Amino acid sequence: MIKLYHCMSARSFRPLWMLEELGVPYELVMLPFPPRVLQRTYLDVNPLGTIPLLIDGQTRMTESAAICQYLCAVHAPTPLQVEPHDHGFGAYLNYLHFGEATLTFPQTLVLRYSRFEPEHRRQPSVAEDYAKWFLARLRSLEPLLATRDFLCADRFTAADVSVGYALMLAQHLGLSAQFTPAVTAYWERLQERNAYVRALQAQEASARAQGVSTVPAPDTR
Amino acid sequence: MIKLYHCMSARSFRPLWMLEELGVPYELVMLPFPPRVLQRTYLDVNPLGTIPLLIDGQTRMTESAAICQYLCAVHAPTPLQVEPHDHGFGAYLNYLHFGEATLTFPQTLVLRYSRFEPEHRRQPSVAEDYAKWFLARLRSLEPLLATRDFLCADRFTAADVSVGYALMLAQHLGLSAQFTPAVTAYWERLQERNAYVRALQAQEASARAQGVSTVPAPDTR
Repeated sequence: MIKLYHCMSARSFRPLWMLEELGVPYELVMLPFPPRVLQRTYLDVNPLGTIPLLIDGQTRMTESAAICQYLCAVHAPTPLQVEPHDHGFGAYLNYLHFGEATLTFPQTLVLRYSRFEPEHRRQPSVAEDYAKWFLARLRSLEPLLATRDFLCADRFTAADVSVGYALMLAQHLGLSAQFTPAVTAYWERLQERNAYVRALQAQEASARAQGVSTVPAPDTR
Repeated sequence: MIKLYHCMSARSFRPLWMLEELGVPYELVMLPFPPRVLQRTYLDVNPLGTIPLLIDGQTRMTESAAICQYLCAVHAPTPLQVEPHDHGFGAYLNYLHFGEATLTFPQTLVLRYSRFEPEHRRQPSVAEDYAKWFLARLRSLEPLLATRDFLCADRFTAADVSVGYALMLAQHLGLSAQFTPAVTAYWERLQERNAYVRALQAQEASARAQGVSTVPAPDTR
């Protein structure tokens, strides 16, 4: 069975949400955040110390957006992925990457330099630079989402999971009040999905069962 | 014909290298860096102001690692991609994303806060934090590359283009002296590829023909 290592509401929420969308059985291992400090034995399983880690037979993956694509491809056919000959294939790949490389990484700077670092190492100006950077990139979705429900191929796909997690993180960081109107409506649509709700419930239930804090990891430490 | 907007030795080098690997004809449009400051009309073509932009018929893409995957998929079959039923498919997707999200983004922080920002806004400690962060993540490739020539599927693939560009950027930033031995040997192997050499020649020739500086963009401004 697929095994997913996860911290509350961290990037690994993408594969968790995806597994729920696909209805694929999985084992969820909850870790305190950051695991490389609070659960050193995790480094034996994943020397990078990062989450997610997904293990599926001989396959081991650590990049959350790549895992979304992988899960679709190995459980194809599914409307959650876009095939190379379909309209929207380029946009599908683009938004899968955009959600992480362009919309999530800048927010980790906000987290690090406004919350995680000890007081004397905080850098409010860097946190502000990258909050602005994130919001500017996010605004580029406004014209698209003003006329469509989802990012590509006229349906919900793994690309929406990738970008959707970036919006979830932004909400934890208090940036969602600055979303433009169509982005706000899109984020509300995503949160209404049954699989999204089930993923939230699954992490909460697993955290309680495994004795891990249920406070969202991006807000802790 | 495919049109690629590119700045000297910037992220858009990934799709350029990939086009040379595939032997697909393309038109290369060279821009001064950063285009959103030095060539404002580019914002009419790409409101994000970022490079790359690839246009292929109705398809428009801005994420360099996604473009590598796209080009392989639409020109399949090619040994440059790994198919879902092949051994190494998960690793292929993982390294495609890893090259950008994990190995390139941290280096943009080094660039920004040690070179691009005006003196009074520089943050040497942030540049140092992310140079360390990059080198720590890069070291995770050492055990793998100590026993293999390429990242996955026992051959050169688009995943090597994604990670290869991160190494090229690190060299421009003066970080390559800190590469571990197997990573150094891997980076030398990549630079010996004919398509890599042709991509370097193509950007140089196009820059001269189009009156754009041939100084690598990551080192300018």
